Amino acid sequence: MSDGLNSFLFSTPEMTQVFSPQEQLRAMMQFEWALTCALETKGLAEPGSGSRMLPLLDASFIDRATLAREAEQAGNIAIPFIRQLTNTVKVLDEPASRAIHLGATSQDLLDTALVLEMRDGLRLLNDAVDRLDAALVQQAKAHRNTILSGRTWLQPGPPTTLGLKLAGTLTALRRHRDRIRSAAQRALALQFGGAVGTLAALGAAGPAIAAELARRLDLREPEIPWHTQRDSLVEMVGALANLTGSLAKFARDVALLMQPELGETSEATSEDRGSSSTMPQKHNPVACAAVIAAHARMPGLVATMLNAMPQEHERGFGLWQAEWETVPEAFRLAASALAHLIEIAEGLAVDGVRMRANLDARLGLPLAEAVYAALVPKLGRSAAHELLRQASSRAAEEKRHLGDILKQLPEVTAQLDATAIDRLLDPLAYLGSADQFMARVLGEEHA
Amino acid sequence: MSDGLNSFLFSTPEMTQVFSPQEQLRAMMQFEWALTCALETKGLAEPGSGSRMLPLLDASFIDRATLAREAEQAGNIAIPFIRQLTNTVKVLDEPASRAIHLGATSQDLLDTALVLEMRDGLRLLNDAVDRLDAALVQQAKAHRNTILSGRTWLQPGPPTTLGLKLAGTLTALRRHRDRIRSAAQRALALQFGGAVGTLAALGAAGPAIAAELARRLDLREPEIPWHTQRDSLVEMVGALANLTGSLAKFARDVALLMQPELGETSEATSEDRGSSSTMPQKHNPVACAAVIAAHARMPGLVATMLNAMPQEHERGFGLWQAEWETVPEAFRLAASALAHLIEIAEGLAVDGVRMRANLDARLGLPLAEAVYAALVPKLGRSAAHELLRQASSRAAEEKRHLGDILKQLPEVTAQLDATAIDRLLDPLAYLGSADQFMARVLGEEHA
Amino acid sequence: MSDGLNSFLFSTPEMTQVFSPQEQLRAMMQFEWALTCALETKGLAEPGSGSRMLPLLDASFIDRATLAREAEQAGNIAIPFIRQLTNTVKVLDEPASRAIHLGATSQDLLDTALVLEMRDGLRLLNDAVDRLDAALVQQAKAHRNTILSGRTWLQPGPPTTLGLKLAGTLTALRRHRDRIRSAAQRALALQFGGAVGTLAALGAAGPAIAAELARRLDLREPEIPWHTQRDSLVEMVGALANLTGSLAKFARDVALLMQPELGETSEATSEDRGSSSTMPQKHNPVACAAVIAAHARMPGLVATMLNAMPQEHERGFGLWQAEWETVPEAFRLAASALAHLIEIAEGLAVDGVRMRANLDARLGLPLAEAVYAALVPKLGRSAAHELLRQASSRAAEEKRHLGDILKQLPEVTAQLDATAIDRLLDPLAYLGSADQFMARVLGEEHA
Amino acid sequence: MSDGLNSFLFSTPEMTQVFSPQEQLRAMMQFEWALTCALETKGLAEPGSGSRMLPLLDASFIDRATLAREAEQAGNIAIPFIRQLTNTVKVLDEPASRAIHLGATSQDLLDTALVLEMRDGLRLLNDAVDRLDAALVQQAKAHRNTILSGRTWLQPGPPTTLGLKLAGTLTALRRHRDRIRSAAQRALALQFGGAVGTLAALGAAGPAIAAELARRLDLREPEIPWHTQRDSLVEMVGALANLTGSLAKFARDVALLMQPELGETSEATSEDRGSSSTMPQKHNPVACAAVIAAHARMPGLVATMLNAMPQEHERGFGLWQAEWETVPEAFRLAASALAHLIEIAEGLAVDGVRMRANLDARLGLPLAEAVYAALVPKLGRSAAHELLRQASSRAAEEKRHLGDILKQLPEVTAQLDATAIDRLLDPLAYLGSADQFMARVLGEEHA
Repeated sequence: MSDGLNSFLFSTPEMTQVFSPQEQLRAMMQFEWALTCALETKGLAEPGSGSRMLPLLDASFIDRATLAREAEQAGNIAIPFIRQLTNTVKVLDEPASRAIHLGATSQDLLDTALVLEMRDGLRLLNDAVDRLDAALVQQAKAHRNTILSGRTWLQPGPPTTLGLKLAGTLTALRRHRDRIRSAAQRALALQFGGAVGTLAALGAAGPAIAAELARRLDLREPEIPWHTQRDSLVEMVGALANLTGSLAKFARDVALLMQPELGETSEATSEDRGSSSTMPQKHNPVACAAVIAAHARMPGLVATMLNAMPQEHERGFGLWQAEWETVPEAFRLAASALAHLIEIAEGLAVDGVRMRANLDARLGLPLAEAVYAALVPKLGRSAAHELLRQASSRAAEEKRHLGDILKQLPEVTAQLDATAIDRLLDPLAYLGSADQFMARVLGEEHA
Repeated sequence: MSDGLNSFLFSTPEMTQVFSPQEQLRAMMQFEWALTCALETKGLAEPGSGSRMLPLLDASFIDRATLAREAEQAGNIAIPFIRQLTNTVKVLDEPASRAIHLGATSQDLLDTALVLEMRDGLRLLNDAVDRLDAALVQQAKAHRNTILSGRTWLQPGPPTTLGLKLAGTLTALRRHRDRIRSAAQRALALQFGGAVGTLAALGAAGPAIAAELARRLDLREPEIPWHTQRDSLVEMVGALANLTGSLAKFARDVALLMQPELGETSEATSEDRGSSSTMPQKHNPVACAAVIAAHARMPGLVATMLNAMPQEHERGFGLWQAEWETVPEAFRLAASALAHLIEIAEGLAVDGVRMRANLDARLGLPLAEAVYAALVPKLGRSAAHELLRQASSRAAEEKRHLGDILKQLPEVTAQLDATAIDRLLDPLAYLGSADQFMARVLGEEHA
Repeated sequence: MSDGLNSFLFSTPEMTQVFSPQEQLRAMMQFEWALTCALETKGLAEPGSGSRMLPLLDASFIDRATLAREAEQAGNIAIPFIRQLTNTVKVLDEPASRAIHLGATSQDLLDTALVLEMRDGLRLLNDAVDRLDAALVQQAKAHRNTILSGRTWLQPGPPTTLGLKLAGTLTALRRHRDRIRSAAQRALALQFGGAVGTLAALGAAGPAIAAELARRLDLREPEIPWHTQRDSLVEMVGALANLTGSLAKFARDVALLMQPELGETSEATSEDRGSSSTMPQKHNPVACAAVIAAHARMPGLVATMLNAMPQEHERGFGLWQAEWETVPEAFRLAASALAHLIEIAEGLAVDGVRMRANLDARLGLPLAEAVYAALVPKLGRSAAHELLRQASSRAAEEKRHLGDILKQLPEVTAQLDATAIDRLLDPLAYLGSADQFMARVLGEEHA
Repeated sequence: MSDGLNSFLFSTPEMTQVFSPQEQLRAMMQFEWALTCALETKGLAEPGSGSRMLPLLDASFIDRATLAREAEQAGNIAIPFIRQLTNTVKVLDEPASRAIHLGATSQDLLDTALVLEMRDGLRLLNDAVDRLDAALVQQAKAHRNTILSGRTWLQPGPPTTLGLKLAGTLTALRRHRDRIRSAAQRALALQFGGAVGTLAALGAAGPAIAAELARRLDLREPEIPWHTQRDSLVEMVGALANLTGSLAKFARDVALLMQPELGETSEATSEDRGSSSTMPQKHNPVACAAVIAAHARMPGLVATMLNAMPQEHERGFGLWQAEWETVPEAFRLAASALAHLIEIAEGLAVDGVRMRANLDARLGLPLAEAVYAALVPKLGRSAAHELLRQASSRAAEEKRHLGDILKQLPEVTAQLDATAIDRLLDPLAYLGSADQFMARVLGEEHA
């Protein structure tokens, strides 16, 4: 419910606007105007009919209360919309009113209007993706060497870099950009098929009018009408949900790192942002929460779209309608998730000292793998594993550094001297390919 | 989006109102007023503080633009709401303003306000369920003996009665009434726990104030705060989705029977209702479609609620928020589905002649089972099955009545004479327990 | 896929057994045997027919390869099952074979067999719920006074007790027990309606045979057949998913507390349990992960069940089938989640010293609310909030205890002396109603 | 549960095999063997180690009972798998055993093995898509001019052709082929990152070994490890679900047309296929039902995959595991849906006479639009609509052909003579662009 009190969390003002009643009516009006123009070129509308409709393009003539009342009877808003449009044009120019909606059906109007709104929505999303990409690149460069615990199962493991964490999100984001582009190429297509998809009411002129209509709306003309084939809408919503999932992954990580017991990162904070009504000292991960919340609602939307695919024959009863609020909701949630992740990425506060301190506080245990890897070729996997397991347990129990323990074990010192052990347990020396991976993602690699 | 152009399809005006911004603010105001009153009884608010808030109960003092702007910063609407409330009361009576929200946290306010709205929503739903029950009972009585093809896999089988079809929906509806009642008993509970659920800010007075607060709001006082345990909300949304599923089953059946090739039932039609923009002769099952559409969106809402359960510690970050628009959406969709099914049930047009004609047009084949059942004890399952399969195939191929075929088969006539065959193939004689089942559902059975 | 290599994570051996092919066949056999017995009592089967089937009750006579091959043709396993059964009985006693399946349809057999398996599955689940309840009660008692940070938005707030956290899960668990009991009362019902739900093939004997059949299977006899009304199955799967959600909430909290940087709780660990292939020192929250994984898959199952409700007429084509593997999967996942949470609850290691240390490390900031609450009646909400916000910020920046800061602020010392401040900042003194809430949940309260 | 009694409906034998325990173990073995070979090239494994593992490539040495038991402790099957592998190799050649799994982590092994299985699964799916494409093309050509009612809202409208209905599915199928190809390009990538994604245990040799490993497995080498970024798996499952949705749309249409009251198409039938246990004359749409059932389960799987995206840090706890059975399930369901739709498409029986008869039985009403379209330019939309609405109502009420009514209306005859009316009401003359659309889809159009 984009106008509810909680819409601040589940949309952006711009995306709310794109899918607002005004814009939906405007997009519907654009379709009808372009159709009349196309009919005109084939002599199916009086010359000048399209021009007479130009002043109506903002759809402000629509009486929305009447529209709502009549839509309830008709089952959709297209029928009363056309009625009001026809009546309005008739007053201006009776002949021009005769060709309105000629050859089209309600679904042509509603589907194409949705496509026009989606196109506007995609512009916003693409801009946001670009901005997020830039922010992530900047942070990834800034934190290319910022070392912190890698964590698996919420347990610290060997070190990684904040840069590499960011690079992971960056690679996903770029795949999502490709996916959204592909989805858009398929989905941003004119729907124009008439009552059952044959354009029969236009006789032989159907394809020519469809082509002209697509040209006027600057939409791809599909091979055939897609009113019964909803796969491209499903793909689009799926791509937005998938994107949001990757954003949520990053937001969750930030919120986890923002736990004061870790204290490694933080959303940008301000006096008002993220404060608590009862706990004045707190800074809540409010932007992270917004991303998580948007993500939590996306799978349901995708499920709805998939459920709604088997629409009966040439137009379903009910499943088509189930898409109507679902597609806009997906755009709003994706926009909100992107906006909040941009806020996070651009304002991310990083405490590198704390990161290193947390790593060191683990007594060298996360580096056990390095020693293990060094011992495996000499002792075999099992023996090395067992050796490290016991040494690690002792280190944990006795709260001593793993290096101290290892330096006292003859099985170890037979293979490694103290310097070698220290080197193996140096986190900075145990980043493996992290920097090379970064170079690839940042486009620095010269193959 | 309840205020979108398509809200006519996905809500009722009454349910839209219940979950409107105005009502949400009113419910929040009710909580804060009742809390102040409760604090007063324990000396934690100045005497008369509650009374001073009485003129504010409609929440019209709230500046919603400011609320929205500040909510974006704060992460929820509770914090700016309390700020405006406090400022407003302060002007009226500074001491009264001091106890506002004392002991409570944002979630107490938002959760309890949601519960108050749900209570209003449930009143609407329960009334609608009762009205639908009455309509179904009336139709079931009227069509107790209206015979039509039972259909399995969309293929006609032995006859059943329209009454029995209605009775099936009726039994489900009554189970849903029980489920919703149980869910309501659990879900309509005060949430009041303070920052982390201990009511610590109220010292020893916590339970007494909670009890008084629950009493004033006429809500159940739970054993302990439920802010971290969302199971009762999940149950409620699940019950509404389950209800809608049963309604969709009936709507789909009606729409299928309404295919002109069957022509057995119809939604009530009128000049405007269900007309097509291009096919003037059509009467579309628009009410059925509305129910199907509502149902198609419900599984996603339930999935969201279930996903959102593992809310971290004493308050989650993101998953709680994912509930905010999901619960109201479920109420709106259920309300819409009920309203449309009431329209269908009350206005259902039934063509009993056509039902019988469709049955008869099947050449007795759907009654093959009756003959089969009569032959099984004599010939065994396999032989009887094979015999009827062949006879049915012949009847279908030769377009002759199954009775004619059977009367010429010696294996059959050895067991059954022509009169017996005719009796077995009489649909009215093959309704089995249908009437007794009806009697049970209509409460007529005297055990 | 319960027999896949990962089934260790998504089922228990006992629940896998309940929904195994063997048990499904056994349940089907039980239905057919009981039906023959019921038919016998009404003279519709030869005397002794039921007894002749007794040796077949374990269904071991079924040739599963043939069954699978023929099921592919027939569309379900009921038809080839009955064929094999009939052939087998025919050899033993031809007359006894004649009444097999008389009056029933495939769905009667498959639905009732599912109900019989669900009953067995519910016994396992109920036992597990009881065991989990006992473990939670024991831990709640043991940790009634174990103090730790309450945490909201993953940020430490005022203290709570581990007992109260456990009590929250306990109250949810008990509600789930009630829900599952209600769902079972509705769902554990005989399905017996014949081809289209009228029991027509049994003539007037339908209800009597249905009653006898229900009696033999010890199942509730429903008012009317429920083959077209799937709401009780949906409710059952929903209740299991809801239960699993509450378990996942607890598992997530444990895993979060188990982060070494917090180190407050731990799953029971052993040499093998939760070890890493490469990080020998790690102890992964493997049981928590199993619960989270089970929960993550449940919303999809519930969505499937809800989607599948509008089954056409007297038997759907496809939606009924969509339930077949979904219901067993829900039982397996719930069983796995319960088993793993029992392991967690029974073996939970608690580090109370660390809990307290983490709380103290927050410099008194989580207790800011206590001071705030004490100051609100004197200074008003806004002034008190601002005062605490600034003092908290200073404490955080200067890394000094909040008490030290406050004792130097004249606005504070004008209202509170040092002792009062210390008392307000004592976590043990700020547990509010925690103990009273515990008493309610543990049944100690004498109202 | 692919080995359950109902797996005939939810998989194909070939796809069941691809995701069987044997194949999973074999794929895991392939990874470990290729890794050892890659390590060898960089001197990190003894020369000849890879060759010594060649006899183990079928993984038959694995003791699955032990594996299962130990997996339960370890939390995954990778750890016990490597233990058994190491022990087995150790007996053959102790030095060769030392490098096993070096540098890798459990997730590398399990993710890459999944990718290898997916590649096999995609081969099956792509073959099936090609076969379905061919069948649809053949039917589309055969029925290019087969005329039948277009139907919207389940109500007959103007005519269309069966060819065009088939062409709609064909265009969607081809888009799905593109989507699956794109998804495969992204998803069929090596996962190899070591404990936290840095390949630290391999020192500087990481990228070179990764490249060699990818080469040996014939997998794409990704820019960086994708263990924490699951978007390509999500995309893959989403693409399979989307595909299945389009198949379900066609299956639903066939099943609807197969209603005997329409009788326009039929699945191929045989004596056994689609027969009923109690209604010997019936032919159930069993293949359609299988497609519908597969589709009904897909949205839940996609929802699970999307839910599971925000996997914590460098490896999640629980959400990763939630993918394990979900991805294979999606492949099995897609394979089943494709196989059943191939059966439907290849064996589709079409009754063109009945199609035409059903169209004619509508008394010309579905062609009202043609007359309407002819009258709009002369009378305007509203007047023409009203005229046709009334004439259609009369035709329906009086059961007379619409042409007869129209020829008696002066408002009509003033514009159209009897010949014109007859021509307008000729279905064959009202197919609009259907043939041109077909030409595009069949690749015949010369622009």
